[in-house]
Amino acid sequence: MGLNVTQKIIQAHLVDGEMKAGSPISIRIDQTLTQDATGTMAYLQFEALGLDRVKTELSVSYVDHNMLQAGFENADDHRFLQSVAARYGIHFSRPGNGICHQVHLERFSRPGKTLLGSDSHTPTSGGAGMLAIGAGGLDIALAMGGLPFNLAMPYVVGVKLTGSLQPFVSAKDIILEVLRRKTVKGGVGKVFEYFGPGIRSLDTPARSTITNMGAELGATTSVFPSDDITRAYLQAQGRAQDWSELLPDADAQYDEVLEINLDELEPLIACPHSPDNVKTVREVAGTPVAQVAIGSCTNSSYTDLMTVAAMLRGRSVAAGVSLGVSPGSRQVMEMITRDGGMLDLIGAGSRLLESACGPCIGMGFAPPSGGVSVRSFNRNFPGRSGTKNAGVYLASPETCAAAALTGVITDPRDLGIPVPQVKLPEKYLVDDRMVIPPLPADAARAVEIVRGPNIAKLPQGQPAPEVLSGPVLLKVGDNITTDHIMPAGAKVLPLRSNLPAISQFTFSAIDESFPARAQELGGGFVVGGHNYGQGSSREHAALAPMYLGVKAVLVKSFARIHLANLINFGILPITFVDEADYERVEQGDQLAVDIRNLTVGGSLVVVNQSRNLEIKVAAQIASQRDLELIRSGGALAWASQRMSA
Amino acid sequence: MGLNVTQKIIQAHLVDGEMKAGSPISIRIDQTLTQDATGTMAYLQFEALGLDRVKTELSVSYVDHNMLQAGFENADDHRFLQSVAARYGIHFSRPGNGICHQVHLERFSRPGKTLLGSDSHTPTSGGAGMLAIGAGGLDIALAMGGLPFNLAMPYVVGVKLTGSLQPFVSAKDIILEVLRRKTVKGGVGKVFEYFGPGIRSLDTPARSTITNMGAELGATTSVFPSDDITRAYLQAQGRAQDWSELLPDADAQYDEVLEINLDELEPLIACPHSPDNVKTVREVAGTPVAQVAIGSCTNSSYTDLMTVAAMLRGRSVAAGVSLGVSPGSRQVMEMITRDGGMLDLIGAGSRLLESACGPCIGMGFAPPSGGVSVRSFNRNFPGRSGTKNAGVYLASPETCAAAALTGVITDPRDLGIPVPQVKLPEKYLVDDRMVIPPLPADAARAVEIVRGPNIAKLPQGQPAPEVLSGPVLLKVGDNITTDHIMPAGAKVLPLRSNLPAISQFTFSAIDESFPARAQELGGGFVVGGHNYGQGSSREHAALAPMYLGVKAVLVKSFARIHLANLINFGILPITFVDEADYERVEQGDQLAVDIRNLTVGGSLVVVNQSRNLEIKVAAQIASQRDLELIRSGGALAWASQRMSA
Repeated sequence: MGLNVTQKIIQAHLVDGEMKAGSPISIRIDQTLTQDATGTMAYLQFEALGLDRVKTELSVSYVDHNMLQAGFENADDHRFLQSVAARYGIHFSRPGNGICHQVHLERFSRPGKTLLGSDSHTPTSGGAGMLAIGAGGLDIALAMGGLPFNLAMPYVVGVKLTGSLQPFVSAKDIILEVLRRKTVKGGVGKVFEYFGPGIRSLDTPARSTITNMGAELGATTSVFPSDDITRAYLQAQGRAQDWSELLPDADAQYDEVLEINLDELEPLIACPHSPDNVKTVREVAGTPVAQVAIGSCTNSSYTDLMTVAAMLRGRSVAAGVSLGVSPGSRQVMEMITRDGGMLDLIGAGSRLLESACGPCIGMGFAPPSGGVSVRSFNRNFPGRSGTKNAGVYLASPETCAAAALTGVITDPRDLGIPVPQVKLPEKYLVDDRMVIPPLPADAARAVEIVRGPNIAKLPQGQPAPEVLSGPVLLKVGDNITTDHIMPAGAKVLPLRSNLPAISQFTFSAIDESFPARAQELGGGFVVGGHNYGQGSSREHAALAPMYLGVKAVLVKSFARIHLANLINFGILPITFVDEADYERVEQGDQLAVDIRNLTVGGSLVVVNQSRNLEIKVAAQIASQRDLELIRSGGALAWASQRMSA
Repeated sequence: MGLNVTQKIIQAHLVDGEMKAGSPISIRIDQTLTQDATGTMAYLQFEALGLDRVKTELSVSYVDHNMLQAGFENADDHRFLQSVAARYGIHFSRPGNGICHQVHLERFSRPGKTLLGSDSHTPTSGGAGMLAIGAGGLDIALAMGGLPFNLAMPYVVGVKLTGSLQPFVSAKDIILEVLRRKTVKGGVGKVFEYFGPGIRSLDTPARSTITNMGAELGATTSVFPSDDITRAYLQAQGRAQDWSELLPDADAQYDEVLEINLDELEPLIACPHSPDNVKTVREVAGTPVAQVAIGSCTNSSYTDLMTVAAMLRGRSVAAGVSLGVSPGSRQVMEMITRDGGMLDLIGAGSRLLESACGPCIGMGFAPPSGGVSVRSFNRNFPGRSGTKNAGVYLASPETCAAAALTGVITDPRDLGIPVPQVKLPEKYLVDDRMVIPPLPADAARAVEIVRGPNIAKLPQGQPAPEVLSGPVLLKVGDNITTDHIMPAGAKVLPLRSNLPAISQFTFSAIDESFPARAQELGGGFVVGGHNYGQGSSREHAALAPMYLGVKAVLVKSFARIHLANLINFGILPITFVDEADYERVEQGDQLAVDIRNLTVGGSLVVVNQSRNLEIKVAAQIASQRDLELIRSGGALAWASQRMSA
């Protein structure tokens, strides 16, 4: 039976497991990337492994998140990352060089290779035929150490594109259509693989917009074949040698097929507050707009910005609108400057923001109170923009430009202006001076790592004792998100490399006294309801509780990624066998659980000493590896032992 | 007897008083400007006056300080300012249009006119022959209401320039030389008026660099004649009609003359932590540099940035340096883009920051811990950069570019590269689309002012009691800046329109417990040394102490603008008659001063009840008006009574 692209790449990288959808597998990782908000912690973890140099084919450390530098913390992190990169054989993309995914696509993507990145939008390079997966920083650290990446063999959804995009309709509208149909939960455990005649009309940056925002489906990743369009792109980037063809076999199978006729697609927009709350632009046309933001890893390529520039040329941003534009990379910025797009953007009244994530992660350019912001970005969760009551809409660059010009949400087809004609460059302006290549091994060993006062050593995980005991530090309800457990935002993000400091924000959305209580009582248990730990994959939501002494989390059910993070950091995840027992444990109760007989898929007994009763629980331990992680005190301690052995 | 330029402008605007140096005078104000950090408060005050429309020839509201927008506050302020401008007949320069002083010079400066601005660097337009003075927001509000501005008739220091600037030496080095000689206290009560053959070699932007940073002398303002160089500049800006000649009379006198031979001047640099700590660049050459910042109202003109671009062309920013460039205005940004400078900057690895004040006020781009930052800016007070232990150096754009290229402080003459040849444009790119002109009166009355939740009503000042009494809340030394009294930066600036919130940061650079102590003790006194309140014009350095209950400030001497601000907000400013008495009062001492006999220029007795001794002090009350302000509880209460009468 023929293979699809996803299966071909996995087959070529399979280290362990069976390629049966849903089965645990482990795959070899060729490349890694980090950004600065997750990267500092990933490299602290890599340091803790005690290795001399990364073992990947290529690892790149980017700086794109914490670029505002309101205090010393961000600049210190940038220097730390630069010195770590020099020490361990990692490419360093200097601040100002652009957004990790855009730069990686331009300069490092390679069809058929695997890429693991400590950012959920790592699938961007799937537009160039890579299997590019987002993961927690610890997984990146282990991959840099040469260990394979563990995941469930994905189901492969074939997305068949037919027809071709109509004027003012673009790649963003395709992924919005997929989100409309499949929702933000529709991709869990799946890879979205695009095929069919419609993909011929999509250049590589357009394909990458689609794979990028596939993250919002909850998918493992998204991927396009590597064909002559991919070759043309890599050739234009001066990287013809990095191209190889990678097509699905003629008789390739998909677990499910979704068909989209591009001829019929019209401009779409995701309304507040979810990327799958998709309507046609015409349905919400006329909504007054306070701000427009164009950029982000989803839509900030040369073609995106030249399209916007062409629409703005000789026109003005409406008086009530603030328009911010963040070019995706230094290459994009340099080329739009050379080719006149920058003049059009500035002339029309754009505010030119740095080449970085910026407003997409609430790092500046927050909308006014209750204001509507139309963005070419990928997420519109409440508060993410920095303004709690803002209404954020997600749309194509064309729809964003239309809103900027009119001051209200507007279908770009209704502007009555000519369709912008922007061609993919035959040759990109290639200048890698802002990427510092790895040093030779000897020179690298001499590098001293620069640590600012905000960069704290990582505490070592301790092997688990025979009995976990302590009080219930907090009891919460259903659907607790990782944002509840560990908030993000401009205030907390600069502390990402300082576990003691960031831990003081643990559960601050629910109970500000939690960190002090946990430390005073020497740690203990957290009790919760269903779907505990849903949302962002941030590992700090497990790291910080570990730091504060949380030994086990007892809930009705876990969200998948957070469950993995808890195990990674040696916190025992257990669920009530009888959900009614949730009522038999309260905050302050003294619990104890003997884990000497902990087994894969086994059960345990939690003794509620305060109420003198026993509660049967299921340990959420799915593999021998998980069991070892818990016993060792987390993946870092486990991997260190393994690597030194 | 002939008049100098300063005297001519004052004579033409004199409303009251005698033109005798040191005497109180009041002058008519033709133009006002505000920026957003001080402007929100200034317009809240203007609103409190109950007028229908500004009474100036021209008032402009700029947005250049609070541009990061980490939360809703800044964007709300921008909308508030835009709606206030529309309501009251004020020009509104939209966010992204540039730094107030640069834009004002380009588009609104007029020789012979008076300009009052709520920013200490308002003297920038003195480079085009204006009498341009910085003041607190309240003074701007009153000036917009048609009231004259009160000041002491300044002493006029004639700065005679001879010779001409040598290669790689520029206007910044001239003002650094003046600062080296006169110190940050040397300008109090004075106007620095430039004359002599050397001024022929300085174009208007260069002259404006000098008048801009004259603020660091503590001067009332600085001014150049309006000559054919001024005409050429205005003509290139499409404003030939705004030019008029304004030269000193042949027999003009100066109270003091300072001579600088430009032939002998070499590149200078102000070392941490004061703008007058000036050395030659060669004296500190070789100091490792972590970051370089080019921009600010001092040095971000077209010629400045094209000079830097020429030096960076085809070269790279050193690996250890982060270089940030903020163009001074949209005009500058557009022109350097058109003329190729932008490509050079990006190509070399610059981080392009928004056209705004940015790093100069700690609004992002903070240096790393303990890092050296070389900046083309005007102030290097401790902590102003956002990083408390950073070492900030101030230098010319040429010296900044040299440091960026080499990674160490470097005299640009030692780079061994050709001298950049940048000519002033014969025609600037004029495009005022980002300035919204005033509405006609009827349309203006229909405008609704947009207020976000962070825009708090102003508390009304209360008439002063007969005896001011309370403890010494804080005792400080010499040269306390308004940055010490009320910090700026990304964290505090967004609270500028919210007095209760921002007051909690009063004196936080010196003593974080100050606000709580002041409120707990019901207010009291602040004691200080010489030049108290130097630096930025921010009136929040008086408003917040007033809010916290500070009743009087007792020091050895005051900086001019802060003294006026204290009186404006009803805080009694008093100085030791015998400076040795500074030693006879300590923090915590209980003081009382009977002000029933307060008179213009009179003295008072402060009773130190804790030590049972009396201290003779001079009330810094220069006019009947000042006296009325103190008695009324501040200028707002006073003006409201006056205008309603």
